[in-house]
Formats: sequence, C-alpha cells, structure tokens
Amino acid sequence: MSLVIAGTMAFDAIETPFGKTDKIIGGSATYAAWSASHFTQPIQQISIIGGDFPNEEIEALQQRGVAFDGVEVVKDEKSFFWSGKYHMDMNTRDTLVTDLNVLAKFNPKVPDSYQGCEFLMLGNLMPSLQKQIIEQLKTRPKLIIMDTMNFWMDIALDDLKETMKLVDVLMVNDAEARQLSGEFSLVKSAQKIMEMGPKYLIIKKGEHGALLFHEHHVFFAPALPLEEVFDPTGAGDTFAGGFIGHLARTKDISFENMKTAIIIGSAMASFVVEKFGTTRLKEINNEQILTRLNQFVDLVNFEIDIV
Amino acid sequence: MSLVIAGTMAFDAIETPFGKTDKIIGGSATYAAWSASHFTQPIQQISIIGGDFPNEEIEALQQRGVAFDGVEVVKDEKSFFWSGKYHMDMNTRDTLVTDLNVLAKFNPKVPDSYQGCEFLMLGNLMPSLQKQIIEQLKTRPKLIIMDTMNFWMDIALDDLKETMKLVDVLMVNDAEARQLSGEFSLVKSAQKIMEMGPKYLIIKKGEHGALLFHEHHVFFAPALPLEEVFDPTGAGDTFAGGFIGHLARTKDISFENMKTAIIIGSAMASFVVEKFGTTRLKEINNEQILTRLNQFVDLVNFEIDIV
Repeated sequence: MSLVIAGTMAFDAIETPFGKTDKIIGGSATYAAWSASHFTQPIQQISIIGGDFPNEEIEALQQRGVAFDGVEVVKDEKSFFWSGKYHMDMNTRDTLVTDLNVLAKFNPKVPDSYQGCEFLMLGNLMPSLQKQIIEQLKTRPKLIIMDTMNFWMDIALDDLKETMKLVDVLMVNDAEARQLSGEFSLVKSAQKIMEMGPKYLIIKKGEHGALLFHEHHVFFAPALPLEEVFDPTGAGDTFAGGFIGHLARTKDISFENMKTAIIIGSAMASFVVEKFGTTRLKEINNEQILTRLNQFVDLVNFEIDIV
Repeated sequence: MSLVIAGTMAFDAIETPFGKTDKIIGGSATYAAWSASHFTQPIQQISIIGGDFPNEEIEALQQRGVAFDGVEVVKDEKSFFWSGKYHMDMNTRDTLVTDLNVLAKFNPKVPDSYQGCEFLMLGNLMPSLQKQIIEQLKTRPKLIIMDTMNFWMDIALDDLKETMKLVDVLMVNDAEARQLSGEFSLVKSAQKIMEMGPKYLIIKKGEHGALLFHEHHVFFAPALPLEEVFDPTGAGDTFAGGFIGHLARTKDISFENMKTAIIIGSAMASFVVEKFGTTRLKEINNEQILTRLNQFVDLVNFEIDIV
C-alpha cells in the first residue's frame, strides 16, 4: 500500500472577520487526507480521536478510501480541540483555546497493514511522535515529508532536529524558516536547514506563494490571487495533502515532478480557504481542480523572446 | 522618437543593515533611465537638477543614449536630496532627510524634440506635474505609465485621481493599492483602481513579486529569491525602467508582451539591489541579463500532466 498520513484529527472553532463557527471538523491529518484523496487512494491514516468524533465524518473519509486501522479511538474521552481568531490580514491569528484531550496520551502505533508504504506524510505533531512513526516502519518509505511549526521550535527543538535528520522534505512557513536557521534571507535559511537533514525544503509564504529548494535549485509556486480568503485554517495541511497526493499517484519523486506537486498543493489550498473548514475539499471535483490548475498556468506563464 | 522618462534626478544618502553611503546619485528618473537604456535608446529625460549634479553622471547617461533637452539645470541651487534608513526586513524604511531644493520649483516643460514620443514613463513625482507633462504632448503616446506613492495619496489625492484618468498603466505597491481602493483584497483593489482610469495595474510586492492586472486577467511575476538584498533603493524605478524599456523596444503593448516586460523589470530590479545606488545598472551587460531571465524561467516553469 502506498500513502500513510499522520497527524491530528480534531475539532476547531474559528472566528474570522467574515464570521465564526461552532465546533467543526479540523486537524492536520483530516485536511491532508481530504486533499490527497482527490489524487490517490487508499490513504492510511494515523491519528487519535475521542468518542465525540462524528461517525459520519469517519464514514465520509472511509468512502474516500481513507483507512482507519491506525486511528486510535478513545471512547470515553474528547478529541483534540483548538479555537482561534484571525486578524484582518488573515495571516496572523490568536489562539483562544487549546484542549489537548486525547492528544495528550497519543502514542502512535503503525498497524501491520501499513507496513511497506511508499510515501509518508507527517502532518504537524510533536516531533518525538513523528520520529516514533518513522522508526516503526520496517522498510523506509520512498519519501518522507514532515510538516512542523514554531511551537515545537520553542519547546522541543532538540527533538525536532533529531526528527528532521530522518526526513526527505521539510515544510515550514517563512517565519519558521527564519527561526530555525537564524538567517533572515530565505535563500540562506534554506541552505542552513538543508544541512540539518532534509534534502528538500518547502517554505510556505501564505498569500505570497511557496518556495521549493533542493541543492542549488529553487522553484516558486505563486498563490492564486483571491477576491476573498474566507478561512485560512488548514491551508498548509491541504497544500501538503495535494503535494503528497500527486507524488503518491505518479510515484515520481524527481525535482521536476515536485514542481507540479507544489502547484497542485497550491491549487488545493486556494480551494480550502473559500469556505470554513474542510467544506470545499468535500465539494470539489476533478474538473474544477483542472480548471484551477489552468489558472495557475495562466498566472505565471510567459515568453522570453529577448535577443 | 520613442521613449520619454520623467521623474527626479537626485542625491540619496542610504543606510542599511549592511552599510551606509555618503551622497550618491539617485532619483526615480535616473534609475528608470539606466534600467531602460539596456533595452532601448534614445531615451528622452525630463527632470530638474542643481549645479551640484556631477557632470560625469550626465555624460555617462548621455553615452547611454539619454537626451538632456528636457532636464532643467538650476546652476546656483542644489539637487533634490533624500536620506533614509532601512530596517532589517528591507521592506520598511525611515526617511531621515528630504530636501526638495530645485524640486520645489519644478515646472516641467516638454521640449519640441520630445514631441511625438510613443512611450511615456512618468516616474514618481507630484501628480499635478505628471499631468502637466501629459497635457503638453500634442499627440497622445501609445502608452502612458504612471508610478506614484502613498505620500501623494495623503496630500494630493484629488490631483492623483485626475492624473490617473489619463494614463494606461498605474504602478503602486500593495499597501498603496489598499490605501487607494479601500479594499484589503488585492484582486478587489485592482478592480476598483482600474475603474478609476488605468486599463492596466501593476501591484509591486517587493520580495514577494509583482502582479499585473488587466480586465479579468492577472499575471504574477515572482521576485528572484536572493541571498542578500544589499540596498532596495530604486528597485521600483528600475523595475519600471525595465518594463517600459522592453515595451518601447518591441513596440508591442499587448497583455502577453506586458508579461514578458514585467519579468524583465523584475530581473533588472534583482540586479539593482545587489549594490548601493545605480552601481549594478552601470556594470551589467546583455549576457548577464539573459542569464538572469533564464533564472526566472527556471523559477516558475512547471508541467501539468494531470489527467
């Protein structure tokens, strides 16, 4: 079997300048799985949920080819809950509530049925848990991708650095790349971070697009200029899901194919921000995705005819 | 004759985290002319300078095909002087000194020898003066481009709006687009600004690239990720010079050709920030420009093979 996605499956309550939600489904692995499922199935999920996680959501994911063998259900406890409020620029947010709940005792176990996976997406999670998952795999996957965040740089930097040594692709945002490297220039940041382990680095810049670094190569994927960003929650996870989904589908991990994958990730992210939560990821079809990919082609395609 | 460039020719004193300069040559029309001269000559300059503006600089520009018929020299007075200090992020700066000097009495006159020009680049200048230049042209140029800044939105908004009605392409940065339109979304900003007159809008986002809007089309030119931005002064003017220089050379004002022009502007801007002032614009040759343009192709070129 091919793609394993690990991360949180959770509830979010979100407030943006455009409105607010009650508890809705969220979590890094939820967004990544919905996004990746448009490109490859089955997907083998690793996570932990409480008895309050709705059956309909589990069934909807299973219908999208998402296996739950690796999802631990703690019946008498609650799922991880996060609540946040976005500022007007939609790039900054305040965390209002973080209830770890079941996540506090997460001790991920890779089921036998997941052994032999070719692609591993480690969504944002405590770095020691990400490492634990890698170490349980008897055969090293063809490609391991790791997402992380500033929070772990603040409280678990040593663990983060240990885990980074084991992965192929690291994903961080621009502020995190600067924090991790101590360099302001993103080019210098990338060079330093790639010396820490990952052969590939993706720096996400939100509405300003994303950069992919490898050795001395760099590729830039723009973000689609949108009339409105309704809810940016999960945009990074959705991006990651589209990226790994395309790689797992094509089984081609060349730098050239990663360029296509990063555009696909950007396209998926451009959908998810249009409505609250995972709503758009459940609605869209292949034709809509193709149309959006063509918008990316139009956005950056140019001729150099200069002599 | 083909290209007229209007704007300031001045002295700057610049302080960045990497060093500081004494008075060096600057000004919007100076940067734009140096940049454009790599693509098209002659260039017909409109500006005002004091007796202190160095002869060697005038001669160097003349050797690059820059005509001075429209540059007023006020022998007993000083040239415009600006001094500023950049913050660590190189996107924000404090103005330390602004001595208008000769600029206070600038009353631009278009010489007869400039009549019939096909392309007009109005560098950043008081909007009423930009308008005065347009109105002196007996035949409307094929394309009029206007650069402006937040300062004029604060103190001369009505004049700015009047001038905007007369131009084809407006250039502003992202903060200025938001200020001018009252919209946070750049897509919505662009729609509103294009309703004010310009058929084309370029929104410059510094290290995050630039967007070109026209009707419902949008094109995105990335900025080249650089190891170091040494001095961002004049990057916008250099961008404008490369843009108009390419259009004037090819005499093709289609949206498709503007895409190429904006990439060329971005390439020129990526050179100018490598050293203080106009230094790099004087050093570089066609081969180096071509090499850099190819870096832009590599930076954004991708294949979509999805089915």
